[in-house]
Order: sequence, then C-alpha cells, then structure tokens
Amino acid sequence: MNDRPLILVTNDDGVDAKGIKQLIEVMRFFGDVVVVAPDHPMSGMSVAITVDKPLRVKKLKEEAGYIKYQTNGTPVDCVKLAFNQLLDRYPDFVVSGINHGANSSISVMYSGTMGAVIEGCLHGVPSIGFSLCDYDPDADFAKAKIYVARVFQQVAENGLPPFVCLNVNFPKGEIKGIKVTRQTAGKWVEEYDRRTDPHSRDYFWLTGHFKNFEPEVEGTDLNALDNQYVSVVPVNIDLSCYQTIETMKNWKF
Amino acid sequence: MNDRPLILVTNDDGVDAKGIKQLIEVMRFFGDVVVVAPDHPMSGMSVAITVDKPLRVKKLKEEAGYIKYQTNGTPVDCVKLAFNQLLDRYPDFVVSGINHGANSSISVMYSGTMGAVIEGCLHGVPSIGFSLCDYDPDADFAKAKIYVARVFQQVAENGLPPFVCLNVNFPKGEIKGIKVTRQTAGKWVEEYDRRTDPHSRDYFWLTGHFKNFEPEVEGTDLNALDNQYVSVVPVNIDLSCYQTIETMKNWKF
Repeated sequence: MNDRPLILVTNDDGVDAKGIKQLIEVMRFFGDVVVVAPDHPMSGMSVAITVDKPLRVKKLKEEAGYIKYQTNGTPVDCVKLAFNQLLDRYPDFVVSGINHGANSSISVMYSGTMGAVIEGCLHGVPSIGFSLCDYDPDADFAKAKIYVARVFQQVAENGLPPFVCLNVNFPKGEIKGIKVTRQTAGKWVEEYDRRTDPHSRDYFWLTGHFKNFEPEVEGTDLNALDNQYVSVVPVNIDLSCYQTIETMKNWKF
Repeated sequence: MNDRPLILVTNDDGVDAKGIKQLIEVMRFFGDVVVVAPDHPMSGMSVAITVDKPLRVKKLKEEAGYIKYQTNGTPVDCVKLAFNQLLDRYPDFVVSGINHGANSSISVMYSGTMGAVIEGCLHGVPSIGFSLCDYDPDADFAKAKIYVARVFQQVAENGLPPFVCLNVNFPKGEIKGIKVTRQTAGKWVEEYDRRTDPHSRDYFWLTGHFKNFEPEVEGTDLNALDNQYVSVVPVNIDLSCYQTIETMKNWKF
C-alpha cells in the first residue's frame, strides 16, 4: 500500500517551462506526483475557466509515482480536470509554478499560477503557488528550490486553515531567509503601447510598470523581496469584507 | 462645466447583451456614461488579462454624455483600456453587468463581471458588479433595475472603503428588499461531461452543479437570494489573511 502523499503540480507557463520541471523535481522527493499543466503559456489568466470550447487532455508520461498530462485549458481548467477526471482521489497538495516572474502584490489577482492555487484551495486541498522574480526562460532556480522544499515541509507539518492558500515569491539572486508577509498595495500604470498597423488602424500592446504605494514598508511582500527574503503571503479566498458588512448596516437602501 | 459623475460601464456577456443595455439605461440617469465592453461573450474570464496579442478598440456610438466602445479583450482589459487610453480622467464609478446568471458564493472568483469590478477597485475607483440569477438572454431585468439604482445611490452617498468593491446579485422574480451578506462557502462538483469525438479521441465539456456547504445559513449571499432578497457582498481585494500571518509566525521554516 502506497501511503506517500499525492501531489498535483501545475503552472501557467506551460508544461515545457523550466520552472515546472524544477518544481516536479522537488515534489518527487515528497510524494507521488501527477502533473496536469497547460500545453502553452497561460500567463495572466487569473482564475479563468474555459466555458465555450471542449477541453483536450494528453498523457505525456507515466512511470512509478509520476504521471504527466497536458491540456489545452487554463491553469484552473487543469486543476478541475485533475480533480474531476484524471485522479482517483483528491490530491493531498496542489502546487503551482515555479512561475517565471513575480506574482507579488496585486499580481496575485492576475496570475494564472495563483489561479490554480486558488482553485485547489476552493476544493479544500492545501495549495501553494511558487514564483521566482526572474522572467528569464532559463532562470536559475537552484536557490529557490531549497526554499520550495522548506515551505512545502512546513505546510505538510502544520496544514493550512480552510479557505487559505499560500503565495510564495522568491527573490532573484541571494536568499537570506523566509518572511511571512502581506500583499503590498500598488497598481499598474501606463499599461498600453499604442501602435498603428499598416492599414492605419490602432492597436494596443499590454505593457506598463508597477507603482508601489507603500515602498520600504516592513511586513509587505515587496519589502521582503527587495531585501532578498522569500515572501510567503497567506491568501484568503473568502473575499467577504466583514468589517464593511458591519458599516453597511447603516446604509439607507 | 459638466459636473455630472463619469461612469464606466462594462460586462462579460458582451456589448450586445440585454443586461448591459439595462445597466446603461439606469446609469444614464446618474451621470455621463462611457461603455467599454467585450465584443463577444467573456464569461468565466475572472481577472484575466490579455498578454500575448494586441487589443483592438472600436467606437460604436457617441452622443452627448454617452460614448460606447467595444474591444476584443477581456472585461479587465476593457477597464484597463478605458483608464489608460480612452478616458481623459479616471471615472467616478465602474459598474459591470447586469450579468445574465448568478455570481454569488465562490463564483465571484471565476466571474468576468466581477473581474472588471476588481480591476476598477484596484485603481481606487468605487466599483460595483450586478448579476441577475437568470441565464435567459431575454431575462426580465425590470425589477432588478430599480435596485441597481438604489444600490448605486447608496454607494454615491456613502462611498466605499479602499480595496473594497460590491458584488450585487438579484433573485429571479419577486424582490423583497436588500440584504448585506457574505460569500457562501461551497464548491462546484462533477464538472465535466466526457465525450468521444468521431476520431475516438476524448474531449471534455465544462458542466457540473454547485454544492452549498452551508444551506439555509442566514447572512450568506445564497440565503438572501433563496429568500428573494437582493444580496450585496462587500468584496475585499486585499487577499492577505492577517489572522494566518500571525499563526504562521510560529512555523519553523
């Protein structure tokens, strides 16, 4: 009887990305691994689901303790297909990443990596997203992998509360340790590059840069990353604002 | 000098949906209206953004106090394009909907309607999503419209706290009043219909049904809707779980 934990691995950069290969390698030390990941990059897909077209699944590999599938869906579709069709039972953990690029601050909202994690959490499974602050497709994940293992082991030991998952970001370069942090307030600005096509019609490319509303504030995820610490944000998927529910009781609808 | 509020209207059912036409009609009573909405249905798109292809914008209409655009992007792309390219200044309000179908409970996570609202909120603009619990493309919005106006007027009068937006759902049929509620706990189950194509390859259609983890619990959005009340959930876009940050300080990383 196999009592190793069952770990579902996915990402949003696609099944061939270097980051997911690193994550698979680490996870195979801790349990049986099933990979269900998109067949092409799905960055920025958030918690999007595919409602208007059929989904396809292809098994790429199967060996003892390790199965790998790709799908044409979003990261959330991958998790749903795993839970509903591909796995015999719910996994013990869902892990997503390692993303090529940061998912700190409000990027948690847009991130396909974190979309998959939120989906796992919605089903009550302890779920963790890992991202490295380096967009290079050939980024060096060696230091990050050590901390993937350390965070995973702590989740395995302590569990996570219901409706809470983790958003873990690794700094590029040196790592001094781990800090538990909160989402930094900020926004994206000057987000489009306006161009004109050969037929004189305008089109827009997404671009822009991030504006940090609270630079150098301790306890924020960006502050930890700026100081070469791993940031771990516990993410709440009950979005209800209980404080505002109270104040809104005075509204005169 | 025009001092009427500037209201950005969008949705996820597309610019031609009946629901957005109803919302535009109500909003024009309260301010100058700019519509920037998807040119085709974008249900289930959550907070997804388009990163891998250029976006197009087409102006469909312009008259005093009213401009309407369509784009090939997601609801969030529509809000970003409005804020960054199409409007001279930030709008005073972002409203999204009226969605054809419920966005109660955890559907707030998948909803393109609410994705646009979250994007408005991320930019600090008071933002409200409206959804009717009726998927009929020709649904009757008459009763819901009265409550769209009532909720909007209260937001205009009281404002909303930073990082908080509203998720408003209307019951189908009779409306008894408004309740301020929280997100019901639940999940989607049996989510795929597995079929085989003429070439003997499997494919999967998204389907399934919702399982309510706390039926008949007062104070939840689904309980309000089940009893023919409008549900108003204040939605928090700071996802940090502050309680868990405290408990995780005892973890031995």
